[in-house]
Amino acid sequence: MSNVWWLAPALESDPHSLEQALAYQQQLTKPAGSLGQLERVAVQLAGLQRRVKPHVDSVWIAIFAGDHGVVAEGISAYPQEVTGQMLHNFVMGGAAISVLAKQLSAQLDVVDLGTISPMNLPGVVHLNIGAGTANFAKGPAMTQEQGLLALQGGRDSVLRAKAAGAELFIGGEMGIGNTTAASAMACALLSCPATLLVGPGTGLDPLGVSHKAQVIERALALHADRVGDPLGVLFCLGGFEVAALVGAYLACAQEGIAALVDGFICTVAALVAVRLNPACRPWLFFAHRGAEPGHRHVLEALQAEPLLDLGLRLGEGSGAALAVPLLRLACELHNGMATFAQAAVADRPA
Amino acid sequence: MSNVWWLAPALESDPHSLEQALAYQQQLTKPAGSLGQLERVAVQLAGLQRRVKPHVDSVWIAIFAGDHGVVAEGISAYPQEVTGQMLHNFVMGGAAISVLAKQLSAQLDVVDLGTISPMNLPGVVHLNIGAGTANFAKGPAMTQEQGLLALQGGRDSVLRAKAAGAELFIGGEMGIGNTTAASAMACALLSCPATLLVGPGTGLDPLGVSHKAQVIERALALHADRVGDPLGVLFCLGGFEVAALVGAYLACAQEGIAALVDGFICTVAALVAVRLNPACRPWLFFAHRGAEPGHRHVLEALQAEPLLDLGLRLGEGSGAALAVPLLRLACELHNGMATFAQAAVADRPA
Repeated sequence: MSNVWWLAPALESDPHSLEQALAYQQQLTKPAGSLGQLERVAVQLAGLQRRVKPHVDSVWIAIFAGDHGVVAEGISAYPQEVTGQMLHNFVMGGAAISVLAKQLSAQLDVVDLGTISPMNLPGVVHLNIGAGTANFAKGPAMTQEQGLLALQGGRDSVLRAKAAGAELFIGGEMGIGNTTAASAMACALLSCPATLLVGPGTGLDPLGVSHKAQVIERALALHADRVGDPLGVLFCLGGFEVAALVGAYLACAQEGIAALVDGFICTVAALVAVRLNPACRPWLFFAHRGAEPGHRHVLEALQAEPLLDLGLRLGEGSGAALAVPLLRLACELHNGMATFAQAAVADRPA
Repeated sequence: MSNVWWLAPALESDPHSLEQALAYQQQLTKPAGSLGQLERVAVQLAGLQRRVKPHVDSVWIAIFAGDHGVVAEGISAYPQEVTGQMLHNFVMGGAAISVLAKQLSAQLDVVDLGTISPMNLPGVVHLNIGAGTANFAKGPAMTQEQGLLALQGGRDSVLRAKAAGAELFIGGEMGIGNTTAASAMACALLSCPATLLVGPGTGLDPLGVSHKAQVIERALALHADRVGDPLGVLFCLGGFEVAALVGAYLACAQEGIAALVDGFICTVAALVAVRLNPACRPWLFFAHRGAEPGHRHVLEALQAEPLLDLGLRLGEGSGAALAVPLLRLACELHNGMATFAQAAVADRPA
């Protein structure tokens, strides 16, 4: 590989801003620590944004879509055409993430990495990397060339976000079958049996879940000699949209934009990113613990502290979008509250 | 008691609106159930508001403040003057809840039920029920007359909220020592030993927590013959601001305004309200599970499903305010997403 941009250093959090933010927060008119996780979030953002008063007003939401050859194994409750139909729904404003982006005044960037039938939708970036991935139960999901294009596709969205002044990046995904791909990747990365991680995805019954686990076990055996490194896992078992998420998270850390990670599939992509280049970890915030059983295992491997736990299992970046008000309010509280001195309120005796 | 307004019937959820909302939600372009708890919230609100598309745009936040005689037992990390100082901070815009109310465009109603020194602050409703409660370790916290005035104080705020067109009511509390009062009440209501429920409040050390438990056990023994009914518990062990919260939740159910319950102290008030008049329960939404150890026990007794779990322990209604965007986005998703038919997206085969 000639161009390994993803191994370049991440930007570093500024210890001075972080310390100042921490000291400032101790002076606000509330018992120290009483805003719990929101205090840690505000201070972490202060360090990353190199300012005592952080902001996440300007939010960029990229939706990466791609189809999955493994759907031929009968592992999804939905027909594969839905991926393309949902691309249309995203730009027409009818999808969950469309509604959320509008409510949050976030910019929505819809990127089609490669669906089964080539499409040409106004408002969608079509990359045409392939007519979906190959069936990873029978061979590698993608070639190295396709994988590199998909990583770059994610990075390009981050560069657009940076040009637009984004202070927070959300990556979402759409791809019928991608819970299966993400589960297979998680099994390989965490050295877990499929039965531990596999769940119903968007709506399989118990028989379907059991079949999905068998398909994954078969694929893990088939690719055993190629899944020893994170890129091998990604290219053999992943999806175009998953690779785009990996590239996006790595680029966020290099370009200095905090990323808010969505559900199970995005968290698996985050794990690949951290395994590839651990310096990206401080740039990742985790929005929620979803309903898919594998999600908590992957979150634990990342020592992530998600903000929400609402039983979500939609994808599209929707869980991350739902957590944006918490990040914003964490900043507003940190930036806007009075100090004990300003308000003439007695602090507890030292 | 001549005027037992709180026993009057609550308004009922409309089963027709609820069924219609449930059926409508099944048609939206997402896997059924994939928005988890937010789907249940939107449907519950639809039934309560008697319309298929619910809204919580207009939010009323009442902060009830009062002082506590039991502070004489040395159970708080903060001096008692802080209650009054924080009243000033609420109306000046420097407190956490002031910042949150502004961000949410919510109306803030600050009600002083009775603090140790009479105050006269512009923008605060002063009820002067007493110079704080009496020390419940030595006698009843309040007289019946005081308790009835405090209940009515909460109801009056709900009537102001209704006149202002509020679609959601949040009650917050401020009162140095009120974690002790709420813990004592919870012990009496749940027949639990103090050691199971008592925690650090706004910042006691382990020795302080142990002392607090002893004070509560002593009070429970002292009032044993008067804490068999919810009003006895409230008047013997509670606080003026806790009684106002009880009155407010009951009035919300009677006036038809959904209430979003904040942390430990508010949840104890909600439990008193439900024990007094169980028909108010469907009107109560629970914002978060806080850091105070007793909170989860009281939530379980109410079969509550809180929205957030962020380790909060501030009070002031702040946890409820932080959950408002989730309720609003739950409504926006329910109301604004396209149906499968509208978006020409294939649903899963039946």
